[in-house]
Amino acid sequence: MENGIRFVALVFPGITQLDLTGPLQVFAQLPGAVVDVAWHRIEPIATDGGFSILPSTTFDTAPQADVLLVPGGQGAFELMADEAALEFVRRQGSRARYVTSVCTGAFVLGAAGLLRGRRATTHWASHSMLSMLGAIPVQARVVQDGDLITGGGITSGIDFGLVVAAELFGADAAKRVQLSMEYDPRPPFDAGSPTAPDVDRGMVDALPAIMRERREPLVRAAAARLA
Amino acid sequence: MENGIRFVALVFPGITQLDLTGPLQVFAQLPGAVVDVAWHRIEPIATDGGFSILPSTTFDTAPQADVLLVPGGQGAFELMADEAALEFVRRQGSRARYVTSVCTGAFVLGAAGLLRGRRATTHWASHSMLSMLGAIPVQARVVQDGDLITGGGITSGIDFGLVVAAELFGADAAKRVQLSMEYDPRPPFDAGSPTAPDVDRGMVDALPAIMRERREPLVRAAAARLA
Repeated sequence: MENGIRFVALVFPGITQLDLTGPLQVFAQLPGAVVDVAWHRIEPIATDGGFSILPSTTFDTAPQADVLLVPGGQGAFELMADEAALEFVRRQGSRARYVTSVCTGAFVLGAAGLLRGRRATTHWASHSMLSMLGAIPVQARVVQDGDLITGGGITSGIDFGLVVAAELFGADAAKRVQLSMEYDPRPPFDAGSPTAPDVDRGMVDALPAIMRERREPLVRAAAARLA
Repeated sequence: MENGIRFVALVFPGITQLDLTGPLQVFAQLPGAVVDVAWHRIEPIATDGGFSILPSTTFDTAPQADVLLVPGGQGAFELMADEAALEFVRRQGSRARYVTSVCTGAFVLGAAGLLRGRRATTHWASHSMLSMLGAIPVQARVVQDGDLITGGGITSGIDFGLVVAAELFGADAAKRVQLSMEYDPRPPFDAGSPTAPDVDRGMVDALPAIMRERREPLVRAAAARLA
């Protein structure tokens, strides 16, 4: 059990808000945790959930993170061309104890050069593009490669959060947070992964192509800048 | 499948942010969904997650909801004494197609007089107090009683969101949202309910008493105002 652990997460336009809010619900309950959410400026950031998030700090003034978290969303792909954001991720990442992402936040880590030769995961529909940034893509809900911990799509951020909590504070602390969050999931359908029995097959086939069309040019450009 | 469904959720100081952000991640992805988040004023509301939420509308100017959502948190118990908030819940609730809550948001519905004789659920650690407001407490992750749909603690808001999605748009639409959210939960421990095998027994025993001490006077006062 440790006190005074600093979590710093990025927020940005086009974020998938649950990528951020799921893990932060876990982190903020850990004993002595201090959570910050950073963007260029302190200004409202519209999310995909009908509300805006106000950051608590900026890239220039954020404290050094023990755990750096990059969430995903379409905006993560725009962020791959934002040199100040990538510099923030590199600078924070070089001193953080853990560098982490949820969903397509992994692409921002990749664009910052932090996934080269590292095992990582991301949202299933964008998974095939992860190797373009030098990562070793792994099909799993949460992947740990040393001090790099990445989660899969959106809701996996809660499982990811508990894995990080256990890593930092031990299994007992993580279990207490799990009970306080009543995290005993009972999805009404078994349709949450491309291989689930009750899944929409048309969407399994179509969504990766849609994501590739929308995102591959941005990933390619980021890969070129890395090289 | 329906278009133009309006979701209106409350936000307030002391909210447990995932009670709100989990369901909104589901709702906002539904075809034609319009999501609003309401408070007295448009001002940043500090959450328990290290960031503030900016409401999109106010109690006075919010559109009529098709689905009214009240999230929970310690602030929900303060809200039971906020007559303008209760009046907003009553007014919206009287015309909404569905009146809903997640976690201890159920106590706000109860204080507004909307749970009398209705089956409902709430967070496990506050469950024993729900009957004080006239509800028929049910131990389940999601409880539907006609047009009243209530979810259990915090993370149950995602299961709840999918149940509401299926009710409004059909099972196929809900399954598509589930896949897009990659909701195939894999908690690292089986410790998420008071009866789970791997749970912290000390916390199962202690937390309801802590919650009762902190909250029962507020629930009693709300019950007295109702009578």
